[in-house]
Parts: sequence; C-alpha cells; structure tokens
Amino acid sequence: MRQPQESMKLVLLRHGQSEWNRLNLFTGWTDVDLSDQGREEAKAAGMLMKEAGLDFDVCYTSYLKRAIHTLNLALESMDREWLPVIKTWKLNERHYGALQGLNKSETAQKYGEEQVRVWRRSYDVCPPALEEHDERNAANQDQYRNVDRSEVPLTESLEITVRRVKPYFESEIKPRMLAGERALIAAHGNSLRALVMTLEGLSPEEIVGVNIPTGVPLVYELSEDMRILDKRYLGDQEALRSKIDAVKNQGKKRS
Amino acid sequence: MRQPQESMKLVLLRHGQSEWNRLNLFTGWTDVDLSDQGREEAKAAGMLMKEAGLDFDVCYTSYLKRAIHTLNLALESMDREWLPVIKTWKLNERHYGALQGLNKSETAQKYGEEQVRVWRRSYDVCPPALEEHDERNAANQDQYRNVDRSEVPLTESLEITVRRVKPYFESEIKPRMLAGERALIAAHGNSLRALVMTLEGLSPEEIVGVNIPTGVPLVYELSEDMRILDKRYLGDQEALRSKIDAVKNQGKKRS
Repeated sequence: MRQPQESMKLVLLRHGQSEWNRLNLFTGWTDVDLSDQGREEAKAAGMLMKEAGLDFDVCYTSYLKRAIHTLNLALESMDREWLPVIKTWKLNERHYGALQGLNKSETAQKYGEEQVRVWRRSYDVCPPALEEHDERNAANQDQYRNVDRSEVPLTESLEITVRRVKPYFESEIKPRMLAGERALIAAHGNSLRALVMTLEGLSPEEIVGVNIPTGVPLVYELSEDMRILDKRYLGDQEALRSKIDAVKNQGKKRS
Repeated sequence: MRQPQESMKLVLLRHGQSEWNRLNLFTGWTDVDLSDQGREEAKAAGMLMKEAGLDFDVCYTSYLKRAIHTLNLALESMDREWLPVIKTWKLNERHYGALQGLNKSETAQKYGEEQVRVWRRSYDVCPPALEEHDERNAANQDQYRNVDRSEVPLTESLEITVRRVKPYFESEIKPRMLAGERALIAAHGNSLRALVMTLEGLSPEEIVGVNIPTGVPLVYELSEDMRILDKRYLGDQEALRSKIDAVKNQGKKRS
C-alpha cells in the first residue's frame, strides 16, 4: 500500500513480441505465445521496475497467454510472484475480426495500404467481422465459457475496445487505487491505448496518434482526483523512440 | 462448472523437485525455485491432467514460487493459463523453524536420525523455532506484509499446519466446490497432507504415514456431502510407488 502522502501509482506494460508479431500476422484474440524475444522483453521490463524501486499490491492481465506470461516473467524478475493477479477478458487485445491470422503486408497488398491503415489506426472502423460459426469465434472456445455469448465480439474498433476497457477500469481498478493499492496492468497495444485514453482524457483524434512500445513499463503518477502528476517510460529513452516507430510502421507494405 | 449429475472433483498437486530438495536441505517457507527436473515434473503433471480430460474453474496455490511455478507450468501444458489463480500463504509448506537451510543428512548426523524423524514425521512436535529477529523470519519479509504479524509462524508442527490449512479449505475452497466449481490446488508436501487429513478425516497416527509424491496429480471425487467416492493418482502406478518411497527416505543419513 502506498503511504498517505504519496501520489497514486499505476504501471502499464505492453506484452513483448509474440510468435505472430514476429510473423507479421494480425493477432487480436488469437491466443499465441510470446517469442523468445518477447520473453526477454518481459524479464527486462521486470528488471526495470525492480531497479526503479516499484512495487505493487495487485496485478491485472488479460485472458491471453502473451500478456499472462509477460506478467509472470516480469514478476519473476521482481521476485514478486506472490502478488495477486486478476485475469480478465476485458483487458484482451482489440478483436481483429476476420483479419485474425492474416499477414499484415499481404493484407495491405490485397486491400491497399490505406484500407489497412484505416482498420489499424482509425477510431471507429471495425475490420470485417467473423462469422458466428467461425472456429476463431471466441464464443465457441472454452476460454470464454463464463462470458455471456452476447458480450463476445466478432470484431472491434478501438472505440468498442474502449467501451469494455474503460468501465472495467472505472469499476474494478480505480476503486482499488483510491483505496491505496498500487496496480500493474500487463496487457495489449489497444487495450492499453484504451486505458491511456481513459486516464489522460484524450479525444479519438488524439488516441489514434498514440503508440505504446512493447515491454517498456509506463509509469503514471496520479493525484487522488485522478489528475496526472507525472508520466514516464522506464529505461533507455533512445531505444524507446525506435520501438515506438517500429509499431507505427507495421502496417506498411514490405519492399 | 461441473454438471448437476456429476460428483465434485478436487485435484491436489505437490510441486516437483526444488533447488533445495536437490541439495537435501530443509526448506519450509524458504522461497526457493524449482530445479529443471521440478519444472519438467510440473509440465508432465499438466499433460497427465489434460490427457485425463480434467478441467477446472479455479486454482489455488501458496505464496511460494516453487508451487506457483508448478501451477503455471501445469496450466501451460493444459492450455489453461487463463484460469483464475488464488495465492494464499495458508497453503504454504509447513514452517520448518530454525532447521530451514540446514542439510537433512547433516542434521541427522548431528541430532540423530531419530530426532530428525520426529521433527519430520511426528504430528505435534515442532522443530526449534526461529528467533524473532532472524532474517529467515517471514514476518520481516515483504512477501508477508499483509499478514498479521501474530499469525506468521516461527516454527510449525504438522498439527499447527493443519490448523491454518483446514479452516482455509472449509471457508474458502469447499464453498466454491459446493457451488459447482472444480478446484486444482498446487501446494506442498505438508500443506497437502493437511488437506488429505481434512478430506479423508484421518487421525494424527494415520496422516503421519501418508506420503504424497511430487508432480503427480491426486484426483478426489466427492459427493455433495463430502464423502470420498474415488481417489486416484494419475499416471504410471509403478513410477508412483518409487516416488513415494523416495520421500520416505529423505531423512536417512547418507552412507
């Protein structure tokens, strides 16, 4: 628990490279594992948090193993495996609909770079939806057996992602922060953008320009009334810049 | 959730070899990691549960990383990382007091095999207690910062271990089982003996004769009124026998 005079701390951590990031495939809710590089990123993120003297009372992650493993490995680096971990599908990556499993560059060649940019970077445009009977439909999978079928998406825009992430943050995470708990959230590019939008009160135009690098802890300090007192990425700031640029360029056709 | 006509299922899993098991040291609450062999045991236990068609709604483990990692690795084998996991110090190994960190064979040479047998296998005899100021006192460690200092043991007999494990089972786990949830508990030799004693209604004389092998899922089937309908270890029954004997012989002097 933080001390009464301390500001509230919240740390966001985007999972490192997954097997499908490496293959440049659209992933969304597909439950692929971290690559070796992703595992190293997760361990390094834990070391950065440990060196920065960060500590937590509660951790959150998604139902997807690339985020769960990122959290587990980071906690192992911090010697904090004993911390409580809450897993929720509400922090899952944005659902990528029928694009899940397709190659990003090939999709750009087929539909055009502009269409892919719109699917990836617009606020309110959904990729083509999965069919109900598609085996990729999460409603047909064990993993989501406790989720009401009507809540399981077949595709999502960032806007729709925000509509599940924001209420979860407001009703589950924020009250614990206000009660003095320091939270770590290990999740995904777009569920974390939804959180950043919520925390910083960004507009749709503003959030689409935000790119969160993988494996770099993002530390927020907040006042009791949720004003942001400080925001910083841990670690080497130059390496950070190139990581952010790498995310931006994923949708481009390969030469 | 189990179906209404199904019996209740509960699976107990003892962590595999730890670094200190390998070195033949008394471990207790010392937070040592699994050895490579222990990690393999955990993965294999997960495969056994998967092949047996077992599934769970909730998982429990201790605050100690050898049990937490065992659970994580078993869930990974089962492709069930997304299951909820509850960590509690109430499922920690029996506290071994001032013996923690000492070599089992050397301790047998120093105090005699009989004294070590009493410490290891009696029901109500505690090993020598840690001093309050000892750095091994868990009350001085971050890991137990949320536990009332008066509850943190300086040594434990099996009887004292039962006095924390049994009420936890009765108040936290059993109600969820009765509500239809299938539980997996990844824990330690003595916290699991405490559970076996509770489940089977064994006497102190009976429980001291029970040896639980490492890395072998123990499956209980229970009726709604907690009668045991079936109890079985998964996997190769011959390998099992030698594992149980290995546990029994740990307190012997080395020739």
